[in-house]
Amino acid sequence: MTSRDPNALLDDARSGSRVALARLLTYVESGGERHRAVVAQAYRAPVPYVVGITGPPGAGKSTLVDRVISTALQEGSFGGHHEFSQIAILAIDPTSPFTGGAILGDRVRMQDHALDERVFIRSMATRGHLGGLSLAVPDAVRVLGAAGFTLVLVETVGVGQMEVEIASAADTTVVVAIPGAGDAMQANKAGLLEIADLFVINKADRPDTQSVRRDLEQMLDFGGDRAWRPTITDTVATDGRGVEELWRQIVAHRTHLDETGELFTRRAQRAGIELERVLAATLASRVSTLAAGTRWEAQVAALIAGDTDPYSAVDQLLA
Amino acid sequence: MTSRDPNALLDDARSGSRVALARLLTYVESGGERHRAVVAQAYRAPVPYVVGITGPPGAGKSTLVDRVISTALQEGSFGGHHEFSQIAILAIDPTSPFTGGAILGDRVRMQDHALDERVFIRSMATRGHLGGLSLAVPDAVRVLGAAGFTLVLVETVGVGQMEVEIASAADTTVVVAIPGAGDAMQANKAGLLEIADLFVINKADRPDTQSVRRDLEQMLDFGGDRAWRPTITDTVATDGRGVEELWRQIVAHRTHLDETGELFTRRAQRAGIELERVLAATLASRVSTLAAGTRWEAQVAALIAGDTDPYSAVDQLLA
Repeated sequence: MTSRDPNALLDDARSGSRVALARLLTYVESGGERHRAVVAQAYRAPVPYVVGITGPPGAGKSTLVDRVISTALQEGSFGGHHEFSQIAILAIDPTSPFTGGAILGDRVRMQDHALDERVFIRSMATRGHLGGLSLAVPDAVRVLGAAGFTLVLVETVGVGQMEVEIASAADTTVVVAIPGAGDAMQANKAGLLEIADLFVINKADRPDTQSVRRDLEQMLDFGGDRAWRPTITDTVATDGRGVEELWRQIVAHRTHLDETGELFTRRAQRAGIELERVLAATLASRVSTLAAGTRWEAQVAALIAGDTDPYSAVDQLLA
Repeated sequence: MTSRDPNALLDDARSGSRVALARLLTYVESGGERHRAVVAQAYRAPVPYVVGITGPPGAGKSTLVDRVISTALQEGSFGGHHEFSQIAILAIDPTSPFTGGAILGDRVRMQDHALDERVFIRSMATRGHLGGLSLAVPDAVRVLGAAGFTLVLVETVGVGQMEVEIASAADTTVVVAIPGAGDAMQANKAGLLEIADLFVINKADRPDTQSVRRDLEQMLDFGGDRAWRPTITDTVATDGRGVEELWRQIVAHRTHLDETGELFTRRAQRAGIELERVLAATLASRVSTLAAGTRWEAQVAALIAGDTDPYSAVDQLLA
């Protein structure tokens, strides 16, 4: 029987218990006291290297991730540095509120690795976490770090604000495009450009691949001077074409971050951003507590009736 | 000499003093105690009808607004209802932090109306307002209402999140597109579609007008069922073409809101949203106070060093 005590679970997870690890991640998703106890330990452990992968639904990300895992495990290191013998995958679908089905789906989907002990796959959703997925995912990454993982892939479905936010909390962020689906990315072009360290054009055996590439190159030309210009790799995940090149690009980007010291700079910035988010979420949870119930309704009604102004109303609510 | 007392200024503004009105709006921009005193009165006055106009820079919005003012003043009512004899224009450029130059610019620009006593033009910026322009503008609208204006045009430059947020806090929101500038709008297509009650294609004597229209129609087809389907009006603001039709559409939309009761529903929703924003801004000002200074830096440093976790750090900061 597995203990429910966070510290005991962390010990078990460190010794390789996937059951213990899964339970710890459930604590993170659920928020509350046990979450607090878990993260209090997890944030003291080494930080894993995080590769974020995002793109519109139907871009073939799961298959691509599957292939990248195979290649990465074959290599076992980042070009001879930073060796690893296992990989964790966090699969995030912000539109899916519960994990049950998705977990099963992932296990079926990632059949190459479902029984591979070197691979840990987890679909994440939030049940009670204070700040939603954009805070739960970094916490989960740190729990994986505490459990001994040094490489984590975070896959998000979608190209909206939240997906971008989650994917960008990575050391290397890969944005997956596909031919003939320009519209899906148009809506958040600027956001994607900002976060992408690497672009992939998956399903690159389709027509229009060149026009997607031209479009991306043009965006990158507009992006101006940067120490690192994102590369664009063509892949066909279904038959593995281009996946080794993608892995080489991931390694190249990590090497760039290492050599320029940017890895430390980025992570330090991220620590500040995450702290701000937790602070904001803590205060926002006060907002949502206050922005409900009869006291709130009374103030809104008074505002509509012209009996108060919003600032006096807030004073009343905070009083 | 004009008093500096908010209540005396409101009396003067109500009697037609533009100097008093300008000073009240400066109080709103500046935030603080005098702002509080002004809004405490202003929110008790009748709410003006607000027409929001937004679109990318260079879409010719100023000229268009100029023409709409002329047409509206000639008409003097919304199709025989809701008469008005004066119009206030709030010109918002979120990228411009100060108003000084912009006010002069507006007076030059809107030369048709700069000396027209029936027209009050004000460029807005925020200096110290708690919630930035998205809260300052609604406050300013209410101050204009308290000064006797029943029709306010809010013009924002840009199609980003903030411009959309400001423009959408209107009863009728007009989104201005132009031929050959699709990219400027692509980035926030979904946001624009959501807020637009009316579309205008200005500079419609240019080629590509039809393709912009097709693009917009397509977006609207995707939008699905709505009680009001946004119309698309071609205008050439420089020679006035289409402006009367645009005014007719504005009148038609107001009539729709009146007849369906949606005007009340919308405004009630907006009251709730605004109250949430003020609450969030009040708490956010606590965030920014906390997310600075040596105590903050110490917690970020501890987080980077692995000596704390974000939740414990926030506890420390809030303690």
